[in-house]
Amino acid sequence: MSRSIAAVCALALTLGSAWAAKIAIYPYDGAALLAGQRFDLRIEATELKGGLSAYRIALDGQPLAGLEQTSQGAAQAEWTLRGTFLRSGSHTLEVSLSDASGETKKSVRWEARLNPRLPRAAKNVILFIGDGMGWNTLNAARIIAQGFSPENGSPRGNLEMESGFGGMATVTTSSFDSFIVDSANSASSIMTGQKVQVNALNVYPANLKDTLAYPRIETLAEMLKRVRGASIGAVTTTFGTDATPAMLVAHTRRRGDYQAIADQYFGRGGFGLPLEVMLFGGSRDFIPKSAPGSRRKDDTDWIAEAQKLGYTFVSTRSELLAAKPQGKLFGLFHIDNFPSYLDRAVWKRPEMLGSFTDMPYLWEMTQKAVETLSQNPNGFFLMVEGGMVDKFEHPLDWQRGLWDVLELDRAVAWAKQYVAAHPDTLVVVTADHAHSLSVYGGYDYSKQGREGVGVYQEAKFPTYGDKKDANGFPLPDTARGIAVGFAATPDYCETYRGREVYKDPTISDGKGGYVANPEVCKEPGAFLRTGNLDPGSAQGVHTADPMPLFAFGAGAQLFNGLMDQTEIFFRMAQALGLNPYLERP
Amino acid sequence: MSRSIAAVCALALTLGSAWAAKIAIYPYDGAALLAGQRFDLRIEATELKGGLSAYRIALDGQPLAGLEQTSQGAAQAEWTLRGTFLRSGSHTLEVSLSDASGETKKSVRWEARLNPRLPRAAKNVILFIGDGMGWNTLNAARIIAQGFSPENGSPRGNLEMESGFGGMATVTTSSFDSFIVDSANSASSIMTGQKVQVNALNVYPANLKDTLAYPRIETLAEMLKRVRGASIGAVTTTFGTDATPAMLVAHTRRRGDYQAIADQYFGRGGFGLPLEVMLFGGSRDFIPKSAPGSRRKDDTDWIAEAQKLGYTFVSTRSELLAAKPQGKLFGLFHIDNFPSYLDRAVWKRPEMLGSFTDMPYLWEMTQKAVETLSQNPNGFFLMVEGGMVDKFEHPLDWQRGLWDVLELDRAVAWAKQYVAAHPDTLVVVTADHAHSLSVYGGYDYSKQGREGVGVYQEAKFPTYGDKKDANGFPLPDTARGIAVGFAATPDYCETYRGREVYKDPTISDGKGGYVANPEVCKEPGAFLRTGNLDPGSAQGVHTADPMPLFAFGAGAQLFNGLMDQTEIFFRMAQALGLNPYLERP
Repeated sequence: MSRSIAAVCALALTLGSAWAAKIAIYPYDGAALLAGQRFDLRIEATELKGGLSAYRIALDGQPLAGLEQTSQGAAQAEWTLRGTFLRSGSHTLEVSLSDASGETKKSVRWEARLNPRLPRAAKNVILFIGDGMGWNTLNAARIIAQGFSPENGSPRGNLEMESGFGGMATVTTSSFDSFIVDSANSASSIMTGQKVQVNALNVYPANLKDTLAYPRIETLAEMLKRVRGASIGAVTTTFGTDATPAMLVAHTRRRGDYQAIADQYFGRGGFGLPLEVMLFGGSRDFIPKSAPGSRRKDDTDWIAEAQKLGYTFVSTRSELLAAKPQGKLFGLFHIDNFPSYLDRAVWKRPEMLGSFTDMPYLWEMTQKAVETLSQNPNGFFLMVEGGMVDKFEHPLDWQRGLWDVLELDRAVAWAKQYVAAHPDTLVVVTADHAHSLSVYGGYDYSKQGREGVGVYQEAKFPTYGDKKDANGFPLPDTARGIAVGFAATPDYCETYRGREVYKDPTISDGKGGYVANPEVCKEPGAFLRTGNLDPGSAQGVHTADPMPLFAFGAGAQLFNGLMDQTEIFFRMAQALGLNPYLERP
Repeated sequence: MSRSIAAVCALALTLGSAWAAKIAIYPYDGAALLAGQRFDLRIEATELKGGLSAYRIALDGQPLAGLEQTSQGAAQAEWTLRGTFLRSGSHTLEVSLSDASGETKKSVRWEARLNPRLPRAAKNVILFIGDGMGWNTLNAARIIAQGFSPENGSPRGNLEMESGFGGMATVTTSSFDSFIVDSANSASSIMTGQKVQVNALNVYPANLKDTLAYPRIETLAEMLKRVRGASIGAVTTTFGTDATPAMLVAHTRRRGDYQAIADQYFGRGGFGLPLEVMLFGGSRDFIPKSAPGSRRKDDTDWIAEAQKLGYTFVSTRSELLAAKPQGKLFGLFHIDNFPSYLDRAVWKRPEMLGSFTDMPYLWEMTQKAVETLSQNPNGFFLMVEGGMVDKFEHPLDWQRGLWDVLELDRAVAWAKQYVAAHPDTLVVVTADHAHSLSVYGGYDYSKQGREGVGVYQEAKFPTYGDKKDANGFPLPDTARGIAVGFAATPDYCETYRGREVYKDPTISDGKGGYVANPEVCKEPGAFLRTGNLDPGSAQGVHTADPMPLFAFGAGAQLFNGLMDQTEIFFRMAQALGLNPYLERP
């Protein structure tokens, strides 16, 4: 529906000679922001000839005050204004520079939006992200969970996230610098409304070396906390400093700045706003470098520090379930990513679980997080990620990935119950990008290799659900499954089936490239498929394919139609009736 | 949203001994129909022991009158009731049979729906089908047509079908006998609200040999014509008797009954209702067997017959554009399928066009069809198919397929203008099934093979639109394109690019199987990829992946959420306020 940023149709005008200086301005031309949303403004001049002789920087015709001028070299000049914001309406920033080549001008236009105050605005937001859960992936998970009536072929039902929603939309993605997203800049678009560079978190581009100094953009969670005193929570099955949970308060050009991201979660760096609830894996980024498995370069022990700061710390399911839902809560349940749902709930292989045999389910973490955060009368913003969906789609392990969608769906079911009792809460369920997964037929597990594939009428009906696990989920062990393919793959060996002990699809060839994993190629029925990705790819990739969005509760009806991902930010803000410009304390 | 058929939760009860007879009943257990929608009721008993000694067939407790009893063998008995219908509400059909093994019972439940009379019901329906246009395919077409701003990465806009709609939904498919659909049974579900067997058109299953005698189900178009005197039209770029246009009035177990389908278009067979407008390819099914290229087994010359019946006949674009929009219109523009849009509008290679050099665009056929049909004051039902999208996705020729989406979109644009002036018209744009297409990166056409693929930030932005054709469509010839993959393929050679002279991805191996086409494998940068389909596959296949739906005009708001494909039928009927039970003349 709305393509608001594109619709701004901004006029980027560069005048000057062929030897003119280059000017870059951030926020970029055509940016839409919330009025009062904070950001770091940055102007960069490069290829200056003979030094800068004069300049004029004007916002809406008035010279812009407070700019810090720096230079990273003879032919360069930069101006930075940190933590500024716009009042509502359209704005033009004009930059005019003079050097030995003459005058160079550039102007950009921005739009700062005001939200109408809603009669029944949301106070809380629970944002569920199925990482890599495009429409096809969701559809595949539904087929496994619900299937079809063998009597008449009708679908037997929907997933929880697909049922009883107040709004449904299809979401498309793109990056500032490419039309494909990674989980970092995609998450940033959801949380800031801006297009962001691949691998960047809530920052605009810059020509800086220090990835942590890039121009910051305030996130919705930060705004809610700053202007309303809301609490913020992150729940995921991945390591805690991964790109998706980092959407909340992290600001860096490099999603791999794990130590800095961990620090930002406790209010060090960025806009300095800590999270009240953190429940995830990845303890390695929170323990001092001396501790086994640590990825830190310093001696900070966030487990100890957190407890001094008043957080309750938990590291097992038992501890989590026993924790009183009050104050601040910090849970680290794994040194790295959680094993998949199937590993934790069904297969329980020691090779996959290691010493982590008492881990919570995503729905348990969601419940405890909400119970804790909801103690704050000022509201909360909770992000819950089914993060391992993507992590298993990358290596083409669709079985682990799809069951993790089912785990996420159970967490959504709990949140729907919460919303029924707390109608001032908005629940949004979406993805950050798709994978190239497609369900193209049925598979007869009594056969091997391509012989087991059935298409059209030979696809028949999958038999998932004939056996169930202790949580009522269908077991992967059944007579007929689904034939799943990926449209973008490295070289790999296809077997059509999952395996209880995970195997990478590729291994290093020792020369910087990757080849199909010979351990997989040895499995019964396995055969080699040459990939279509760039040579040397180790795994599958994100796609430009569209994704689902479902919304429940307060403001859910705002989510509809076909929307660019940045619109999720604006509609969540609208549902909250959030106006950081008017509400600022 | 609604899973109404599944929700009927019907009770199928079979009692009796281990040697009991088998009973099949159609409409199947759990079927939902429109009250007054005609259908052929059929009951089949098989494995009868020692002959049938007694039976009782009761609808809602009352013996069912008018059944024709037959037997196809000693152990078989069948009962047929043609052209019956149900009054609104829930119904139970109980069958009780006695043979030497004792008594066998089976009961099924049906739901017959009544539509509320709407204050502003639709009078006309234009149903656009992008054959094979799943969400990913539509997304890829948008990327080609609109692209992204290289200034900030924002999408530059939507397709016409994605803009200004009054309803948007995501649609899932399944067959009566499998969870994958073909174009025939999928089209039948859209037109009848029933789940249908793969390759069948608007019929229930049966144990009959004569594919044309299968139990018929009345389509929405037939109902509109029968009860309101509306006109029916079919427009497509495929051959005219293909599965999708056949959705309107054809009834057969075998979509390949092309001659019979052609005859049904003129009112011979089926429910006997002819089409008023037919504009498509496939003259081979309408010309006598003596004519070159004919596929008929008889001497019927529908071109000559049609003119006797009052149809204006046209066979070129010039003739079509000159035809007066009055009476009945019959256009055959090709002996078989149309060449792709790119062949007709851009490349114009004699190898691809042959003698068909004066062919209309889909939007021109749409316009003429509507102008002709709208002369009927009782309304019309027009189906317009972008049929070659699917036909080129099958052989992995995504370029031809995606440009045919753009041609369809231009036809939708015309229909949107029509709706603006005729608000009593409902326009629905959807697909019948998806293909396994995915856009996973960018492609640098200055390179070859896998070296040209760029993912994540290296995907950059496609440059389509830098050059345009006479219709304003982007040319495929550009510096940077998209990297497209299919998740389900036969063995084939990948080149990442289109070709002006079409080539099949595979050729017969002379032993009933297929191998990659060596002519493709010789192209620069081509490399062999082993397929993941069942061995011997010649081309790609339909998938279970979900599809978009957009609605405009009267009743458009009824189309929303996640819906099983059969719901499209019920919501179109609802938008029309159509009640064949109450309206029957």
